[in-house]
Amino acid sequence: MANTLIALDAMGGDFGPSVIVPAALQALAAHADLSLVLVGDEQQIQAELTAVHATLSPRLQLHATTQVVSMDESPAAALRGKKDSSMRVAIDLVKQGAAQAAVSAGNTGALMATARFVLKTLPGIDRPAIIAALPTRVPGKCIRMLDLGANVDSTAVHLHQFAIMGSLVSHALDKITKPRVALLNIGHEDIKGNEQVKLAAKYLEAQTALHYVGFIEADTMLLGDVDVVVCDGFVGNVALKALEGSARLVLHALRTGFMRSLWTKLSALLVKSTLNRVRHDLDPGRYNGACFVGLQGIVVKSHGGADAPSFSRAIEAARLLVTQDLTAQISQQPVVVSTELI
Amino acid sequence: MANTLIALDAMGGDFGPSVIVPAALQALAAHADLSLVLVGDEQQIQAELTAVHATLSPRLQLHATTQVVSMDESPAAALRGKKDSSMRVAIDLVKQGAAQAAVSAGNTGALMATARFVLKTLPGIDRPAIIAALPTRVPGKCIRMLDLGANVDSTAVHLHQFAIMGSLVSHALDKITKPRVALLNIGHEDIKGNEQVKLAAKYLEAQTALHYVGFIEADTMLLGDVDVVVCDGFVGNVALKALEGSARLVLHALRTGFMRSLWTKLSALLVKSTLNRVRHDLDPGRYNGACFVGLQGIVVKSHGGADAPSFSRAIEAARLLVTQDLTAQISQQPVVVSTELI
Repeated sequence: MANTLIALDAMGGDFGPSVIVPAALQALAAHADLSLVLVGDEQQIQAELTAVHATLSPRLQLHATTQVVSMDESPAAALRGKKDSSMRVAIDLVKQGAAQAAVSAGNTGALMATARFVLKTLPGIDRPAIIAALPTRVPGKCIRMLDLGANVDSTAVHLHQFAIMGSLVSHALDKITKPRVALLNIGHEDIKGNEQVKLAAKYLEAQTALHYVGFIEADTMLLGDVDVVVCDGFVGNVALKALEGSARLVLHALRTGFMRSLWTKLSALLVKSTLNRVRHDLDPGRYNGACFVGLQGIVVKSHGGADAPSFSRAIEAARLLVTQDLTAQISQQPVVVSTELI
Repeated sequence: MANTLIALDAMGGDFGPSVIVPAALQALAAHADLSLVLVGDEQQIQAELTAVHATLSPRLQLHATTQVVSMDESPAAALRGKKDSSMRVAIDLVKQGAAQAAVSAGNTGALMATARFVLKTLPGIDRPAIIAALPTRVPGKCIRMLDLGANVDSTAVHLHQFAIMGSLVSHALDKITKPRVALLNIGHEDIKGNEQVKLAAKYLEAQTALHYVGFIEADTMLLGDVDVVVCDGFVGNVALKALEGSARLVLHALRTGFMRSLWTKLSALLVKSTLNRVRHDLDPGRYNGACFVGLQGIVVKSHGGADAPSFSRAIEAARLLVTQDLTAQISQQPVVVSTELI
């Protein structure tokens, strides 16, 4: 079994080494073929290792850095002023071939800007995209949606490239042989949508290598009848935040409802396990790990607020993308759209 | 008190006269200054009136038509082939000045196409928009969002016009003196977003008559800190459907959770009133009535599946827009953007 070496930005996210060190140990215990490099402040990482009675080993190395990119730092400032940050160095290790992927829970904008600057896009790919999983009505079934905010004003050619990359990610992470790919639109009819979406539909219909199933809307995609949903990054980011905000609104209303009186508080205790199960089933941390695709290297972004089990799932996603050799797979796709159709 | 006369498309929606006739009676009972015209199939409307022991009167008239636009009919087919449909005639009555507004629960695409074709846009307004209310975390507080799908590829000038119209609707329907208007974006920073949104922000910052408060994201808008959210129709339609789909997903997961065992079914009975209250608070029917703004006449679209109380709220929204003279208010706004900024 080939060894997979992943660099972890140990300082990223809301909790830094206190979450990322235990997550690293969990991931190592689960996968004998995995090695990790903790990139970050030596003292803090050593202190966390000591706290959990662990030590460095050939499978768990440390790469000391002196800077940290903060959660609210501008991408430009991070890129210019933080060349020895844990985030930058983790990506540099991928560039140098010293690691096969980087995982970070840091600032998304800075991570994307750094990944793009250091790694560059793959030949034939104009723009990298962010792809993540969303829960659906079907228990255990997620859909993968891209782009979630790396790009605005995506052209039909970009949407076409996203579709190909999304299909490969769905295959690699969800083990789906021929993922059903849909284009996000505001109706099902051919006349609906903007010019980019209509033109992208033509490209995708012409591409027999993909299992393109047509348009889908933002509510019906949650039924789980498709595997990959493709959209512009502005639209995808709005949709993702609307989904999260709406779920939080409903859960907040429930919590408020249960706090109304002593009777409702008592009744809430009786349904606590059901409510916890629902929260767990819909928890974005279950599918933690947004992948940056289209770059010459694999970068996975964890939620900033991820706990150790959740962060270890982001490591697991990176491991799968490495073992499936996603980067090579994307490079081998005929992603350049024939100009006849344009 | 001036009389308000509203034409109702009695055949529209999933239930037609069986919902719209009782809704009309409810609205008439609530507002002494209101008169209604039921537009549709004479026999069916008379049968419904008989069923609820009501009769036509000077305040409740009937305008017989012979055609119905179906829920899945294409806008072009409706426009071309259904000139004596209840939908078309209700809008014709507004055009002729025989009614001051039209309310329909029919096919949104056909309704917008017909309204646009018959009524035309107001001077200074390039495109009509669809505006509707969304619930927020603050009990009883809604936000008004536009455009929800009348337009795709809105320019900064369109977004600027939507902002002005949205502010007037919020003032008319929610009685807010100086509504806080925000632009939907994928971040708060000035560098975020597409070119249209960035340019629209400049226009809105320059317009002192509006209370423009900056960018907002699709999750934080649900906190209820703003009154009007402005976006392109493609983005708004996706956001609306994502919000609805996500809320349904959570409620479905709850229902499934409570059906798991006899114990969970029994516990569900104890919390039923709380769950019903949450469903009621978040029910889109509470704020039923999406308004088409920017046209030379008022048209309100009810949810297709609305019940009678919900449809009567759509009538109420139309009545408020008539009494506040929204159309004249929009015409009087200096909506044409100074070319200096372009």
